[in-house]
Amino acid sequence: MSARPDTPLLDQVALPADLKQFSDTELAQVAQELRAETISAVSETGGHLGAGLGVVELTVALHAIFDTPRDKVIWDVGHQCYPHKILTGRRDRIRTLRQQDGLSGFTKRSESVFDPFGAAHSSTSISAALGFAVARDLGGQCDGGLGDAIAVIGDGSISAGMAYEAMNNAGHLNKRLFVVLNDNDMSIAPPVGAMSSYLSRLYAGEPFQEFKAAAKGAVSLLPEPFREGAKRAKEMIKGMAVGGTLFEELGFSYVGPIDGHDMEQLLLVLRTMRQRATGPVLLHINTKKGKGYAPAENARDRGHATAKFDVVTGKQQKTPSNAPSYTSVFGKALVDEAARDDKICAVTAAMPDGTGLNLFAERYPSRCFDVAIAEQHGVTFSAALAAGGMKPFCAMYSTFLQRGYDQVVHDVAIQRLPVRFAIDRAGLVGADGATHAGSFDIAYMANLPGMVVMAAADEAELMHMVATAAAHNDGPIAFRYPRGEGVGVDLPEQAEILEIGKGRVIQHGKRVALLSFGTRLEEVRKAAETLAQKGITPTIADARFAKPLDEALILDLAANHEALITIEEGAIGGFGSHVAQLLAENAVFDSGLKYRSMVLPDTFIDHASPKAMYDSAAMNAEHIEAKVLDVLGITQLNSKRA
Amino acid sequence: MSARPDTPLLDQVALPADLKQFSDTELAQVAQELRAETISAVSETGGHLGAGLGVVELTVALHAIFDTPRDKVIWDVGHQCYPHKILTGRRDRIRTLRQQDGLSGFTKRSESVFDPFGAAHSSTSISAALGFAVARDLGGQCDGGLGDAIAVIGDGSISAGMAYEAMNNAGHLNKRLFVVLNDNDMSIAPPVGAMSSYLSRLYAGEPFQEFKAAAKGAVSLLPEPFREGAKRAKEMIKGMAVGGTLFEELGFSYVGPIDGHDMEQLLLVLRTMRQRATGPVLLHINTKKGKGYAPAENARDRGHATAKFDVVTGKQQKTPSNAPSYTSVFGKALVDEAARDDKICAVTAAMPDGTGLNLFAERYPSRCFDVAIAEQHGVTFSAALAAGGMKPFCAMYSTFLQRGYDQVVHDVAIQRLPVRFAIDRAGLVGADGATHAGSFDIAYMANLPGMVVMAAADEAELMHMVATAAAHNDGPIAFRYPRGEGVGVDLPEQAEILEIGKGRVIQHGKRVALLSFGTRLEEVRKAAETLAQKGITPTIADARFAKPLDEALILDLAANHEALITIEEGAIGGFGSHVAQLLAENAVFDSGLKYRSMVLPDTFIDHASPKAMYDSAAMNAEHIEAKVLDVLGITQLNSKRA
Repeated sequence: MSARPDTPLLDQVALPADLKQFSDTELAQVAQELRAETISAVSETGGHLGAGLGVVELTVALHAIFDTPRDKVIWDVGHQCYPHKILTGRRDRIRTLRQQDGLSGFTKRSESVFDPFGAAHSSTSISAALGFAVARDLGGQCDGGLGDAIAVIGDGSISAGMAYEAMNNAGHLNKRLFVVLNDNDMSIAPPVGAMSSYLSRLYAGEPFQEFKAAAKGAVSLLPEPFREGAKRAKEMIKGMAVGGTLFEELGFSYVGPIDGHDMEQLLLVLRTMRQRATGPVLLHINTKKGKGYAPAENARDRGHATAKFDVVTGKQQKTPSNAPSYTSVFGKALVDEAARDDKICAVTAAMPDGTGLNLFAERYPSRCFDVAIAEQHGVTFSAALAAGGMKPFCAMYSTFLQRGYDQVVHDVAIQRLPVRFAIDRAGLVGADGATHAGSFDIAYMANLPGMVVMAAADEAELMHMVATAAAHNDGPIAFRYPRGEGVGVDLPEQAEILEIGKGRVIQHGKRVALLSFGTRLEEVRKAAETLAQKGITPTIADARFAKPLDEALILDLAANHEALITIEEGAIGGFGSHVAQLLAENAVFDSGLKYRSMVLPDTFIDHASPKAMYDSAAMNAEHIEAKVLDVLGITQLNSKRA
Repeated sequence: MSARPDTPLLDQVALPADLKQFSDTELAQVAQELRAETISAVSETGGHLGAGLGVVELTVALHAIFDTPRDKVIWDVGHQCYPHKILTGRRDRIRTLRQQDGLSGFTKRSESVFDPFGAAHSSTSISAALGFAVARDLGGQCDGGLGDAIAVIGDGSISAGMAYEAMNNAGHLNKRLFVVLNDNDMSIAPPVGAMSSYLSRLYAGEPFQEFKAAAKGAVSLLPEPFREGAKRAKEMIKGMAVGGTLFEELGFSYVGPIDGHDMEQLLLVLRTMRQRATGPVLLHINTKKGKGYAPAENARDRGHATAKFDVVTGKQQKTPSNAPSYTSVFGKALVDEAARDDKICAVTAAMPDGTGLNLFAERYPSRCFDVAIAEQHGVTFSAALAAGGMKPFCAMYSTFLQRGYDQVVHDVAIQRLPVRFAIDRAGLVGADGATHAGSFDIAYMANLPGMVVMAAADEAELMHMVATAAAHNDGPIAFRYPRGEGVGVDLPEQAEILEIGKGRVIQHGKRVALLSFGTRLEEVRKAAETLAQKGITPTIADARFAKPLDEALILDLAANHEALITIEEGAIGGFGSHVAQLLAENAVFDSGLKYRSMVLPDTFIDHASPKAMYDSAAMNAEHIEAKVLDVLGITQLNSKRA
């Protein structure tokens, strides 16, 4: 562990109100100390570093100028909120970030009154800020009171349609509202899309001292020293016929771009905006992701997410991996399929690395589409690619596919278009916590008519499922797989095309059948080993398909066992519910069957290691074992408490 | 029935290719005949009239200039596609519109190769067109071939974030692609939002003969006669500092606005665009919803949707209603609650009339928010209103709430914010067909931790549920109710606040318990009457809650009956699945229970009357009766076939 940084001014800040004592020059020093403290903390915990370093000055400036928590600062996504947490009474716990029982890596209402609206998924902040602004004007009451609402949103996040919807509504309502557009020319990956190049043009077109404030009185929002320059800029713009910006068209007063690392300028502009704004204002600041820490600044992803690291060298403590990640197995398998079939293409919503499509993008750039943070569009775009004879793989995290759910229903399923959904981060995901859990996709996909839904039990199965999806051109198909490493099985030379709707029996046993859907299979195997020591040999089957179900297999398991237990990494309504419906319709329950369905519990599970989260969910080997013993009515003589 | 209109030129058009024979002047006449034919057809069938009348000239022009079906014309939403259907080989069936086994009221891939991408939900057309354009350039193959892609989208639809996401992606990819913005200053209701007023400014700013084509070579897309004017316009714009439009910022060449009813101009501009476009082009046309039919033009909704009517007078054949609609009962009940509690507010996504919030908007305009077609924003905005101490009712159709699903999970459920979801159009909806069915909300809402999910069995129950939702301020709550009339029960003077998680027994019986969730209760009652004649008196219960379940009631029903049958107007994964999980966990199946769950079948059910659709779904009284007899092992001696 490196020595803690020296932070004499920051040490005087227990809460944001303590910032009021400092001069502008001192606030700039607080920012430097805050930067050092953030680097030091993340070096111990790992986490999202680059985003926070880019907004250190903004964080200090916002808390110095505004009156938090009465004024609501809403950090979009929340990756950038670590400095904010340090300033808002959580410095003593900042080295527990993303650890079990520690601070969340995102803003979270239950953690602090200074987090008025939690986040983790992108592009919600303007909607949230508008809601607070409206509640304020309607006399709403909440913890901390209701003052100004300030959304801080990145140039990646603003590419999502939701942000546009919110601006459209905010421009219409014309409430006093602040949006800080934190433009670092990065989301997790470099941003794509016309909006991104638009922002670049805005930046390139003007030195940051020159304010472009053409229309609707934005000039009045500028501090005095800038007024003259602004007027000049306005004249210049008239001459150039560049005119109002996109944001002004949507009803915002636009100010910027300014240097988000220039504390003096930030304070001046925010102070003036706070004094004078009447309607919605967008302040465009340019920042550098990873600012002030060379190893982050120089990294391709600007230090987006990091393991624990050495502060001096920046060297990360990578834990050695035992098996390739599911994500990388998917990425490679898709490249293999694409080599054989030039109709295969891939769609990602701003997550080329996270989904493993970076490899595909390198090899087949013309067939790989990063649509920006735009899941709604991404799904329908995939549907039309399929309608046009292509074989699209739409690769999204389970939790983000929720953003495109209506499009899955309306554009893909109803039209029976062969879109292949590669659903990564299925089940519980670890440090990213409840907001990123992939809990609901089995239920929301498997009840769509015509949808095929698979889950991979291990990384070899995932390869087969990629091949199966590539070959399945008669309607949509989805396959899910978790975050993290595979179980270490040998990968086949050649992936197999699975028969649709057929599971497999792993082990023939007696009395109880364990029917797994997904990667809990490994835990089922472990449970079976322990049970064997107790004289119980369960039958083990891997369903492979939640839809269509392997009806013959399931009815056979039910007919030949005293008990049948399903297990899946998903909430109620999914695989187990389909099995129960099958059993009910086939009158299996009429004469009795010890049927149980192990699903995620009815709670949002806080961040911890995936293993610990599955402990909370009671879905590890020991819980499966206990379930079997309970169902069979066997007292647990070997239990620890006995 | 009025006499059919005289249509000598239209009679010569079996397919769009037949339009090539006509002069421009004749095409204008074809449009007039097409307008008359559309009015005549809809007078017999009812349906969406105003939107089609607004695009008669555009429809003729597109099919005359482009080479459909090779060129893909994609009508956003599809309300305006009746004239398109008449021109594309479906004139002989146009008087079956929205009838069982007749033409769909929307575009539909399975209906015609001229419908390359079906619709019904809004704002998908640009994504779809981009997919076809990309597929074309990648060598994709499909029915009819792959040529140009043309999206036709209204000014209401373009307010959705999805349209912005698609434009952002299209501007980035820079493929040849056409978007026709059909600006009639209406969606179903008058459009709201900053985009709408932006479009109005564009229109007001310039006579339609003057082209604003400032940047990026849009001038070259204009036909020769307009070039000189365009140059003048450009100069003028430079002087005015109005500059590039929002669409140009997103990478589109912008042409317009032009008069969408001036056939000569439309043909000229489309012809030139087709010849010269290289990247994405947006053509902005101004049209009048309901154009050319006075009763539509003069209606508040511009003849958006109509019953059968008399062509001469415009008088609609309204069928007398026996009971108030669920929608209006909701609207009135909410106004009553709002009178008592000034924290109650309401959010609609461009459907003030459809959701019954028009009444609320009149009475409490400052507390009613139409956020435009923006369900994602609408849900998160509601969440923040709740965080700010308000009591928001977020009123959306079941099928449209799918658009905001991630926001329900991420912003409402995880944060346990007391948003009240009023879910209209639950279950099968009739003439709007599969795309509008509210089939999935029970499943996708009830598996969210902390969500309360209710369904109203009748209109009095709906009143109680509005009151219950208003009073429930500890976490989110949802209640669903169907399209159409209530069952005619007396409405209470004062709504009751229901106990959360408590159902009610309607009738005590023997052997079989029928447990209903929602408005199938009426069918259950009917089935019970018939069963009574056969000596079977079922117990009938109304669950009221899918979450939390009334565990005591359900376990009691299971313990005291030979059979338990659930019924709900939703797909698998919902109420029945929660009941099955409860029974399994409580070991009820171990010793045998004749359990069945009646859910919507695993198909998308085509448009017909709701009654006929529930016949297809096998969920009417006779099917419930048959299910009971089957479960009890009673041969149906009285069946019609016996």
